[in-house]
Amino acid sequence: MTTELTSDDLQPVAGGGLLHRRLFLKSGLVLATAGAAGHAAAEPPAKLSEDLASPSWMHAPGAPFTPYGKPSKHEARVMRSIGANKDLPTNGVSWTPLEELEGIITPSGLHFERHHNGVPEIDPAQHRLVIHGLVKQPLMFTVNSLLRYPMQSHLIFIECGGNSNAGWHEEPIQRPLGGFHGLVSCSEWTGVPLAILFDQAGIDPKATWVIAEGADGAVMNVSLPLKKLMDDAIVALYQNGERIRPENGYPLRLVIPGFEGVTNVKWLRRLQLTTEPVMARNETAKYTELLPSGKARQFTFEIEAKSLITSPSAGQKMFGPNIYEIKGLAWTGRGKVAKVEVSADGGQSWAEAALQEPVLSRCFTRFRMPWNWDGKPTVLKSRATDETGYVQPEREMLVKERGRNGYFHYNAILSWGIDEDGAISHVYA
Amino acid sequence: MTTELTSDDLQPVAGGGLLHRRLFLKSGLVLATAGAAGHAAAEPPAKLSEDLASPSWMHAPGAPFTPYGKPSKHEARVMRSIGANKDLPTNGVSWTPLEELEGIITPSGLHFERHHNGVPEIDPAQHRLVIHGLVKQPLMFTVNSLLRYPMQSHLIFIECGGNSNAGWHEEPIQRPLGGFHGLVSCSEWTGVPLAILFDQAGIDPKATWVIAEGADGAVMNVSLPLKKLMDDAIVALYQNGERIRPENGYPLRLVIPGFEGVTNVKWLRRLQLTTEPVMARNETAKYTELLPSGKARQFTFEIEAKSLITSPSAGQKMFGPNIYEIKGLAWTGRGKVAKVEVSADGGQSWAEAALQEPVLSRCFTRFRMPWNWDGKPTVLKSRATDETGYVQPEREMLVKERGRNGYFHYNAILSWGIDEDGAISHVYA
Repeated sequence: MTTELTSDDLQPVAGGGLLHRRLFLKSGLVLATAGAAGHAAAEPPAKLSEDLASPSWMHAPGAPFTPYGKPSKHEARVMRSIGANKDLPTNGVSWTPLEELEGIITPSGLHFERHHNGVPEIDPAQHRLVIHGLVKQPLMFTVNSLLRYPMQSHLIFIECGGNSNAGWHEEPIQRPLGGFHGLVSCSEWTGVPLAILFDQAGIDPKATWVIAEGADGAVMNVSLPLKKLMDDAIVALYQNGERIRPENGYPLRLVIPGFEGVTNVKWLRRLQLTTEPVMARNETAKYTELLPSGKARQFTFEIEAKSLITSPSAGQKMFGPNIYEIKGLAWTGRGKVAKVEVSADGGQSWAEAALQEPVLSRCFTRFRMPWNWDGKPTVLKSRATDETGYVQPEREMLVKERGRNGYFHYNAILSWGIDEDGAISHVYA
Repeated sequence: MTTELTSDDLQPVAGGGLLHRRLFLKSGLVLATAGAAGHAAAEPPAKLSEDLASPSWMHAPGAPFTPYGKPSKHEARVMRSIGANKDLPTNGVSWTPLEELEGIITPSGLHFERHHNGVPEIDPAQHRLVIHGLVKQPLMFTVNSLLRYPMQSHLIFIECGGNSNAGWHEEPIQRPLGGFHGLVSCSEWTGVPLAILFDQAGIDPKATWVIAEGADGAVMNVSLPLKKLMDDAIVALYQNGERIRPENGYPLRLVIPGFEGVTNVKWLRRLQLTTEPVMARNETAKYTELLPSGKARQFTFEIEAKSLITSPSAGQKMFGPNIYEIKGLAWTGRGKVAKVEVSADGGQSWAEAALQEPVLSRCFTRFRMPWNWDGKPTVLKSRATDETGYVQPEREMLVKERGRNGYFHYNAILSWGIDEDGAISHVYA
């Protein structure tokens, strides 16, 4: 329920015209702003009877029922953008169009993809998961057998460790948000806790690592700490309520809340308990950074806090001085997002955004902030802090710490430059 | 993280073999049950090297990237089942296959439908929403204008007031769960709070009701209390992250957390503020019950607490004496589910199920309960209690209170009969 707006509510809380996050709960907002937002966004009907005249689609029966629905044909522009290897088109990525989405759920059809050799067409009746290595009794599971086990759901983001890697470039890349930062998506994953399956196999006390392997044409594998897998990892069978889709790992995916994407092995077929990592390609040549000191940063696993303003964002256009909702997404692999701050003056001053409920651990958190833009050029930024106290760094600090050899794990503050015409571009500022 | 299982953990907490809800957090569960669950669900590999032999799909590149994903062809059985009027096939329903789904999210492609005259093919550029009646200034909104307003998300169920109405039959209907109780689904809906739009139009203090109308070929309309719309209703533009699909109201749907399905008007085109309800067909001839007293129960709106066991459920088959996870869904239009109890002895004794986090207001809540079935015939039930203290009634009590003239708002406890062969059927017990 709204409460009455007072003149205090329109006092900026930080530079560049940021207003208090509670403003959207106030009644009378639109009228109070000299009609600006109101007249830009709505208008009195010319003549009510004519405006209410019924359109053609109200004069005939509509389309029949469908067993499985699809998006409107008018939304065909909303798709994953694909970036694949010219010589090996099954090796590449597809990006989630984050700037076209709202809320915190990513529809499964738009969940980002990273494949090393395409999407295997797996017959679920033939697929097997084997748990072996340092266990008392190796075990083999069919998909149907796993469906009988107790399950758990995790509503969580998965982010590729290579997401946003154009941020390491010398010059800011100019693309719509999703085509640059869209290797992150958020779903409800449901499956069998690994702790139950490992317990059944009987863990040898010497085991500390687990090698996970997928059943794709690249035989993708990675090494993972056994402790974390016992904590909260699942062998997922469901994504957003239904069985996982082929490109997300059908029929089985290893899902590890908060860990970088490559560890969430798709088409999971093997878990081998060992005493040390296997030093696979994707934990040595990739997803590991050579630091300025000459040492490498390896097995970082946990995604660090990050946030993005999804609107306004690059490629969109401001529609003149007005009150806007700045909105975006924040996440952290270390638990909950504690706060998101927004700056509308290039980082000189900051104010706290409203975090939309529910705020869940290792899940997307949607933030919203009212902003009275005066039409002058400026720079927008957002900065996430997680519940451990970690603060998303400015780009300059991240580059200084990590150097430029790594090309992974880029989580610096993102800056949108707005010019006098309202055009929005990616800037380093 | 699991903790060690003790013999106490295997003591039943209620009749019929119900075990404590914390059992799934215990280590060693599967082995402790005499290998029953273990051997039924997994087996030692015959010869590890052979079992790990790579299947054909690991020897060739997989399928390329796709702009918008689809479910696996192996899951084609998972679809909405359609029940439409023979003479007017655009009037009917389609049911969500609840027994095939896990977690709390319903994928948008499987969200239930209730159409009175099909799905209109609406051009979003031509669609208008008008707010008029008892307002200072009638307003007209385009879809693009609404996209500029501040938004909110609600992760909530929507249930048709006619869901489960076969429960009023003299004999228990025999169908898979979804084809009987599947007019309920759960999504994240995002859009503009109605309070903001009504404030902008300026509410005449005399207004107490709002007539909402859709742009379909049936011109579906209903009357709603203004107070509730000001509280938490939204004009939704997004479902599960992406723009609403045609059959769920593209481009605009009125979404009212906790209110029965028919009030969540799809293809929303008109909101008229008035002093009294319009007494439309869907609030008089339908969704209103003639009680045994001769009076009618009308404008009940809020969905009362309900729960269903999704597994095991009708049409499925038990696979012998073993430890099972009983799992299901509970919801209430009045806030949060406070608890769900399960009975495995036809209602003689009950034990509390585990509620999976997050437990959100007016959202599906997934419950889980371990059960050691001894192979003997029995009856399973679940009973939800909401945070107001309301308890889901037994069928006998509901029929006694409401009589048999209404055919709506059926929320009685659902009973699954299990026979000596493990076959599961719907029973009145």
